Amino acid sequence: MNSTYFTRRTIRKYEARDLDEGLLERILTAGIRASTTGNMQVYSIIVTRDKEMKKRLAPVHFNQPMVTEAPVVLTFCADFNRFNKWCRQRDAHPGYENFLSFMTAAIDAVIVAQTVCCAAEEEGLGICYLGTATYNAGQITDVLELPEGVVPVATVTMGWPAEVPEQPDRLPLKAVVHREKYRDFTPQMIDDLYREKEARADSQQFISENNKQTLAQVFTDVRYKKTDNEYFSEKFLEVIRKQGFLPL
Amino acid sequence: MNSTYFTRRTIRKYEARDLDEGLLERILTAGIRASTTGNMQVYSIIVTRDKEMKKRLAPVHFNQPMVTEAPVVLTFCADFNRFNKWCRQRDAHPGYENFLSFMTAAIDAVIVAQTVCCAAEEEGLGICYLGTATYNAGQITDVLELPEGVVPVATVTMGWPAEVPEQPDRLPLKAVVHREKYRDFTPQMIDDLYREKEARADSQQFISENNKQTLAQVFTDVRYKKTDNEYFSEKFLEVIRKQGFLPL
Repeated sequence: MNSTYFTRRTIRKYEARDLDEGLLERILTAGIRASTTGNMQVYSIIVTRDKEMKKRLAPVHFNQPMVTEAPVVLTFCADFNRFNKWCRQRDAHPGYENFLSFMTAAIDAVIVAQTVCCAAEEEGLGICYLGTATYNAGQITDVLELPEGVVPVATVTMGWPAEVPEQPDRLPLKAVVHREKYRDFTPQMIDDLYREKEARADSQQFISENNKQTLAQVFTDVRYKKTDNEYFSEKFLEVIRKQGFLPL
Repeated sequence: MNSTYFTRRTIRKYEARDLDEGLLERILTAGIRASTTGNMQVYSIIVTRDKEMKKRLAPVHFNQPMVTEAPVVLTFCADFNRFNKWCRQRDAHPGYENFLSFMTAAIDAVIVAQTVCCAAEEEGLGICYLGTATYNAGQITDVLELPEGVVPVATVTMGWPAEVPEQPDRLPLKAVVHREKYRDFTPQMIDDLYREKEARADSQQFISENNKQTLAQVFTDVRYKKTDNEYFSEKFLEVIRKQGFLPL
């Protein structure tokens, strides 16, 4: 396989030069050949190139500079709208106003998103996923004028890299791979698996910058806090409900 | 980019020969370099190679023959278990028992799954996603002994292709790509976008085999029925709840 899988890093700074329309189309075409449930293609991709639209999306993504600086912003959505319309126009009664169908469409959308990212990175482009797509799905729905049946699940910025950041660490493969059955972790195993990560200079810096005692506390108390998670859970469930995937 | 993106097809029949452990490890290593929220790696991969375990998984996947015939079955899970254990062991209080955290982990899991699939296909391997992973997540949880905090979201069979099926059709790119804003579909647009698909010989055969009037009815009345979707929605939500991601 090509080396990009192993050398990649998330890119947050992009050159000013544009992304050629033909190349983007080729990347998106690669994306839609990926697996999709029953060949229903229950997803959609909103391409944002317009400066004004990027400015409107920026606050939704907590004003992360990638949104206005990247030549292209892609919003991948779970989408039963087109499929439902087709069904109704063909004397068929769609039954997709439920949670399973939302998950089916969301998984389809992420499969396409990641295929697009792999194809783009192989071409030398850089990408960055923005978690804010689920946090603020409601506002994205408004800005991009998404109809019922459509819910954003992933946003990706894409462009030519203007940085070569250090490659982030990953846990050893055995931390995430289980053979035959899930082998739950003993305290000793957790210590072993996280030792290297915790010893890194950037982890130590992270702890002291945030006035914390442990790296884990930086996650639980600063970056991914319970109160935020609970707040955004309610908001996201409301969007899924409003877009017609959960009973009222 | 490599041509696999454009020539790929889902593979359901595999050669009897095994998948080399070194190659599998390389593919999984490619997978875990993919983007992950905050570098938390809140996912896990269960590798099934054992014949007995495949037999136990088979009924869960509606006895689709790929499960017992493929040398490798991979179950990708949303997984906060390891992360939560690490937090608790480091005087940090995890706040991930909510729907947003489930979605974060599920998206992470699918990003890894699709990276693994792209890498495998580039090596000449064939893959097939099984939608049954979400339908029967509860049974998978039992068979693979998944602890609280872990929910299966995607199952992939993998092996050396023993077939070259016809490449399935896809809708034109403009059916799934929207520029700047969602451009909703008029009846005329739906007709245009689905014309080629509906005219295909295999679509016509599909309709007559199922005694239906339209292709859309094959989906709504036979393949992805409302009653099934609603039944499996309840089941899947129950698993998410039981595994600790929704308030009781």
